Amino acid sequence: MRPLPEPALESLTLASVLYALGDPVRLELVRRTYADPGRTCAVEDLGVPKSTLTSHWRILREAGVVRMAVDGRYRRIWLRTDELRERFPELLDVILRLCAEDSPHGALT
Amino acid sequence: MRPLPEPALESLTLASVLYALGDPVRLELVRRTYADPGRTCAVEDLGVPKSTLTSHWRILREAGVVRMAVDGRYRRIWLRTDELRERFPELLDVILRLCAEDSPHGALT
Repeated sequence: MRPLPEPALESLTLASVLYALGDPVRLELVRRTYADPGRTCAVEDLGVPKSTLTSHWRILREAGVVRMAVDGRYRRIWLRTDELRERFPELLDVILRLCAEDSPHGALT
Repeated sequence: MRPLPEPALESLTLASVLYALGDPVRLELVRRTYADPGRTCAVEDLGVPKSTLTSHWRILREAGVVRMAVDGRYRRIWLRTDELRERFPELLDVILRLCAEDSPHGALT
């Protein structure tokens, strides 16, 4: 697998991580990726065009929230869970918990 | 004082609150408002044009993060701290803590 470029942990900012998470589709992608590490970037059931989805994944990757790697025809995705926990203690876990309670798509996975 | 319109607590969404907080200037405004409730909307030292600042305050108000009221020539601002804590437990406190550690303007207030 060929990893895609990603920002170094120390260059992540709180504002850019919050911005990346500040969208209902991206929050749902984060929730699903946490639940299913290494999943592909394909998402069929959110009613989002593929180009929009690609843009959402890119925003998450460039903010340092997810890691992506090319695996043949697919891109595989992981949350940078441990790194985010180190850089922004408690943030990811609080948001994942609220997201599970709040998400209109919470029952879809 | 005349309060400006604000969204009801139950209509707030996690994504819109995170979006509102996902900007370094808005994070700094939130940090200062938490430290100085009822402050005016004037901010001289962030190098942000007044029209941009007005837009940042509006985004924070429309997302339900701050409450604003017209007080003569000024607008006064409060964080909706208790309501945010009720609607999104732990979120605001984690972000305020990280923001204090992370903000490049952390020493300005």
